[in-house]
Amino acid sequence: MSPINIFGDVIPADARIERLLAQIDGAHAELGEPATLSRERANILLARIIWSRSCDPGDGVAGSLIAAVGAEDALHLVMRSVSPQHVTALLREHGSTISARAVAEALGRWEQRLKQPETILDIERAAAAGLRVVIPGDPNWPAQFDELDQHAPTMLWCRGNLTLLRSTAISVVGARAATGYGTHITAELVQGLSEAGLTIVSGAAYGIDAVAHRTALAAGAPTIAIVAGGADRAYPSPHAPLLDRIAAEGLVCAEMIPDSAPTKWRFLQRNRLIAALSGATLVTEAGVRSGSINTAGHAAQLGRALGAVPGAVTSATSAGCHRLMREYGAEMITNVREACELAGVSDELQIFADEPNTREREWQRRVRDALPLRGSRTLAEIATAAGLAPHQVRGVLAELELLGRVHRADQTGDASPKWRLARH
Amino acid sequence: MSPINIFGDVIPADARIERLLAQIDGAHAELGEPATLSRERANILLARIIWSRSCDPGDGVAGSLIAAVGAEDALHLVMRSVSPQHVTALLREHGSTISARAVAEALGRWEQRLKQPETILDIERAAAAGLRVVIPGDPNWPAQFDELDQHAPTMLWCRGNLTLLRSTAISVVGARAATGYGTHITAELVQGLSEAGLTIVSGAAYGIDAVAHRTALAAGAPTIAIVAGGADRAYPSPHAPLLDRIAAEGLVCAEMIPDSAPTKWRFLQRNRLIAALSGATLVTEAGVRSGSINTAGHAAQLGRALGAVPGAVTSATSAGCHRLMREYGAEMITNVREACELAGVSDELQIFADEPNTREREWQRRVRDALPLRGSRTLAEIATAAGLAPHQVRGVLAELELLGRVHRADQTGDASPKWRLARH
Repeated sequence: MSPINIFGDVIPADARIERLLAQIDGAHAELGEPATLSRERANILLARIIWSRSCDPGDGVAGSLIAAVGAEDALHLVMRSVSPQHVTALLREHGSTISARAVAEALGRWEQRLKQPETILDIERAAAAGLRVVIPGDPNWPAQFDELDQHAPTMLWCRGNLTLLRSTAISVVGARAATGYGTHITAELVQGLSEAGLTIVSGAAYGIDAVAHRTALAAGAPTIAIVAGGADRAYPSPHAPLLDRIAAEGLVCAEMIPDSAPTKWRFLQRNRLIAALSGATLVTEAGVRSGSINTAGHAAQLGRALGAVPGAVTSATSAGCHRLMREYGAEMITNVREACELAGVSDELQIFADEPNTREREWQRRVRDALPLRGSRTLAEIATAAGLAPHQVRGVLAELELLGRVHRADQTGDASPKWRLARH
Repeated sequence: MSPINIFGDVIPADARIERLLAQIDGAHAELGEPATLSRERANILLARIIWSRSCDPGDGVAGSLIAAVGAEDALHLVMRSVSPQHVTALLREHGSTISARAVAEALGRWEQRLKQPETILDIERAAAAGLRVVIPGDPNWPAQFDELDQHAPTMLWCRGNLTLLRSTAISVVGARAATGYGTHITAELVQGLSEAGLTIVSGAAYGIDAVAHRTALAAGAPTIAIVAGGADRAYPSPHAPLLDRIAAEGLVCAEMIPDSAPTKWRFLQRNRLIAALSGATLVTEAGVRSGSINTAGHAAQLGRALGAVPGAVTSATSAGCHRLMREYGAEMITNVREACELAGVSDELQIFADEPNTREREWQRRVRDALPLRGSRTLAEIATAAGLAPHQVRGVLAELELLGRVHRADQTGDASPKWRLARH
């Protein structure tokens, strides 16, 4: 098979498209100005972008073919209308057992969607919405997605801080129809998890998801929304402001092309990404038929830690949590310390002692309260504001720095270093 | 060692004491009139009664000595003031590793309490209160107690239906400071467990214990209260009417001698009997320091099934249940079906379908409602009262009979059999 230039042979190699591609490339955009892309980078980005449009989330045939020959050659095979028998034989060579029939069906699906003008539109939409793309092999690509094997996403469309994809995360998900209890306990646990330095991953849905994101935002902690439609599309629409805030201070991402509508299938597939991205999944409140059960199922299948919060057995919105504990081996989570243990965050620093208000923890709160939301302060200023001795503040600042909650402010030639709150 | 006659040598062999002994002997009392006892039976009853006064509940040295040489000879050794070294050597011969010092201490404790007049008083008190004694080897002695090994009780003082000691039982225990939630869910579960034919064992304390007993009584189902003081003593005193009802329709039992005051130690030891008597222990609501945690610990140690009902993590009265699930491997129980499974009761008869109101279950209720609380009815009468067809009533009666909920009324020469509600 002769090599193909996606950029040129498939998508017109004009300067405008090249500029847009550079603009949305997650690996380049950090530089601040639209760099020019190498032909190689443009090819691989385009190939992935076309795959993102051509196949449904979790398409195992596409995943297998891309794993076998790479995204570009896989695309080339489809464009050359290679016979299903040929593709099946190729997959067999690479150890796949996908049937010829499944391959034939997949080729039919993909060909229908392989439309050049729409792909240009996808790129334009992404650039207009400020999206950036991340593909396997990129520095920010989450290695955890590889565990999804042939069901891994072909790429991510992102809005926000891409580096969060590499942070230590816990998914906190639950019922849309959250109760006061679910809301309360979700906020309490997310507050604690945020303070422990974890990134909160959720699905931006009504109810528990929204509480998880909002609590993280309020705590100034990182949060990632993985959405089922396009990353530029607000769903549910009243959550547009919330998604904008998450994009501004955290990250919104999707495997679907821009402007995609979320569908039932896409929600179910989206859940596998929520489960895969984080080391642990915590369901704080869920009915027996909640989508969170699906997310939890993915987490269990991936061997991720799974936790659930118990509630009254008389509450239908806790029945799903109870089911997860009885049938899925989910660990029972009743407080922040247990949630941190679930997420694999050690409490070495003993910020989560059994007694909720140890002196250490209280001091941490006082020091953090003594720091301004914007700007910075010296140790002496903090000590005065917090009502603690300078040596006490020094120890607490060291702990908070280790936890990623405070940073030394950038400064030049000042004898006394200044401290500021971490804004992720 | 020459054989001893407890009746005669230790307790005066007079006719009045012989009559009282016959009256309180659980193996004879069923006959209705005070039978005379064999000298052998009188000896072993008296030996156990004296041990019941002489040692604290769960006294492992006494248990080992009785297991080694029998209650009578063990008593004889103590009365002859045999040296601790001799007793220790004897225990060693029987495989015990109890230290000479522990034996010396035990001998000292027992001798202090070995008082003839008090033992006569114990017998008089028991007879006056209508208590009956059950000892190891008796038909009603619960074989499960043997699993307590040297900590098994030396005997039981009982008030009520002794045959219940042989029934299939589940312990339902929990916090004294029960909430509306705990009360509600305990009543619901006990109602279902009662309908499944299980005997409910509890401790007659305030809160969950009382709800468990009362629900069983209201369901006309058997219930056993194991108390920490004397079986004739109402503790807490406002529970005197409740204990009287349990004695009248179920069973109250104790290992302590009549009129004993319950103490903290005795409560803890009593809990081992609650755990040992039943195949499963269910804690429906408990704080982290609740006595139920102790009962549950005994159950876990004995390898008995252990269950706990989850609740809101914001509720201190559910924290103990959550701890049992996280740390003791207690199974999470959220409904009657799961509670029955915990107790090992199969739902072969499918009375516990997932839908709470299957037709079968509704029919059972209607048939039971159609039976009078006292007296009996024919199948035709029941069918009329229940608004069901005779063939439907026939099937339901067969099921209820299997479950022990209804019985054929005793009658002679009547063509059409009559049915009555089971009163345990």
